[in-house]
Amino acid sequence: MTIHRHLITGFSNPAVKAARSLREKKHRKREGRFLAEGLRLLTEAREAGIVPEALWLGQQRDPHPLVDALEAAVVAAGGTIYETTSDILSKISGKENPQTVLGVFADLPTSLDALDRGRSGIWLVAQSMRDPGNLGTMLRTCDAVGAGGLILVDQCVDPFSVEAVRASMGAVFTVPVAQADWGEFLRWLRAGPGQLVGTSLNTSFDYRGADYGTPCFLLIGNEAQGLPPAYEAECDLLVKIPMLGKADSLNAAVAAAVMAYEVLARQS
Amino acid sequence: MTIHRHLITGFSNPAVKAARSLREKKHRKREGRFLAEGLRLLTEAREAGIVPEALWLGQQRDPHPLVDALEAAVVAAGGTIYETTSDILSKISGKENPQTVLGVFADLPTSLDALDRGRSGIWLVAQSMRDPGNLGTMLRTCDAVGAGGLILVDQCVDPFSVEAVRASMGAVFTVPVAQADWGEFLRWLRAGPGQLVGTSLNTSFDYRGADYGTPCFLLIGNEAQGLPPAYEAECDLLVKIPMLGKADSLNAAVAAAVMAYEVLARQS
Repeated sequence: MTIHRHLITGFSNPAVKAARSLREKKHRKREGRFLAEGLRLLTEAREAGIVPEALWLGQQRDPHPLVDALEAAVVAAGGTIYETTSDILSKISGKENPQTVLGVFADLPTSLDALDRGRSGIWLVAQSMRDPGNLGTMLRTCDAVGAGGLILVDQCVDPFSVEAVRASMGAVFTVPVAQADWGEFLRWLRAGPGQLVGTSLNTSFDYRGADYGTPCFLLIGNEAQGLPPAYEAECDLLVKIPMLGKADSLNAAVAAAVMAYEVLARQS
Repeated sequence: MTIHRHLITGFSNPAVKAARSLREKKHRKREGRFLAEGLRLLTEAREAGIVPEALWLGQQRDPHPLVDALEAAVVAAGGTIYETTSDILSKISGKENPQTVLGVFADLPTSLDALDRGRSGIWLVAQSMRDPGNLGTMLRTCDAVGAGGLILVDQCVDPFSVEAVRASMGAVFTVPVAQADWGEFLRWLRAGPGQLVGTSLNTSFDYRGADYGTPCFLLIGNEAQGLPPAYEAECDLLVKIPMLGKADSLNAAVAAAVMAYEVLARQS
């Protein structure tokens, strides 16, 4: 077996430039790869059976059995291991105090057809989600409630951005993600069982008293605009989360979680 | 009445430097002031009776009755109005596309003694919260559930940072915030009625079946470490939010909201 192991100390090395470029969406799209940082995230990936194509390790790292396990998995998969300086890790990650473990992963599938709707009674559907932190947090919530996956409808932020991957705390590797436009999603949804539930200000029906079906698809609208009226009209059920204060909405990831835990409790 | 209105076109104007410096915590502490951006946030503030000491307006702004109302409120309070260029607003806010309305506010009170515990049956208590987005989101949730306020225990991120203020969507102006160390908080808490509830992995007691008191103080631990054991030991009740996936925790602001909405429903 050939082992691909390199020591890189030069900032202008093409591998450094290629890894660093993955912080930008256009390069991720072109390369079909994304970055994930930190031993915790990469271990989540490994335990989910997902191994980076390239593993970057800081020379100053402390020995750790989980790093050894990662190295072994990358070598076994025919991947490449780069040892490098803290300064170069900073350059790749764009952070002053970079993680000492960093992985370059091949894109994960994001096709609706790859989803198994029988996998869970709860799914999250985000429409035009703009904030990578919200998207990553929703993935983390999907993991926690045992949701089947996160479906991104219309133009959402990239689920494989460094910020979304970080906020997911590794859930990007364990929770299926799909991307589709609204029409594609509706056709897929209506081709099988499933209740589409929207949260809305245009109803007086409290989310606690609602009759949730299985599987239940929880539709969360864009952070600034909420759901378009035409999308609300397609919902099988509209519910309202009580808002007792001055504002008329919750953070999108918070609303998704409050709904998801309610559905989880009612389906249990 | 003297009206303080200035046109500023020079980047080196001391007022520009002073406003810009408020993006950094050390300058906020020294000046006792903070920044808030955008017509929506400043209108939330005005409706809560809080008017900026200085109002910055972009020369290219569109006319808007809410801007007129802000100007009138600042003038009536003896504050200063600066008209300036889009480039200078960019410099102050650090953003390429700055909001055309920006306010410099005097610090809001953050003393425990200023809190009225009879104001609400729900309070959020964050311990060593590190992320300004989480803090702002928790303020927004406080507003939504009608919580009495947010109590920041130990070294938390600054609630008046630009990021926290933005994530709060204006709730920083409507939700009381207090800062205290753990000992101070406990003394204050135990001097009156109140149940301290912690979320923990070290209990099998589901949050849905728990017996919440009034007022109920929901204690949320640091994003990475959770609550220290000694803090858990002080809780009157420990509950667990179900975690069905690979990870062992939710985003801190999400956990706070799931708990707060459960308590709200049970107290209703």
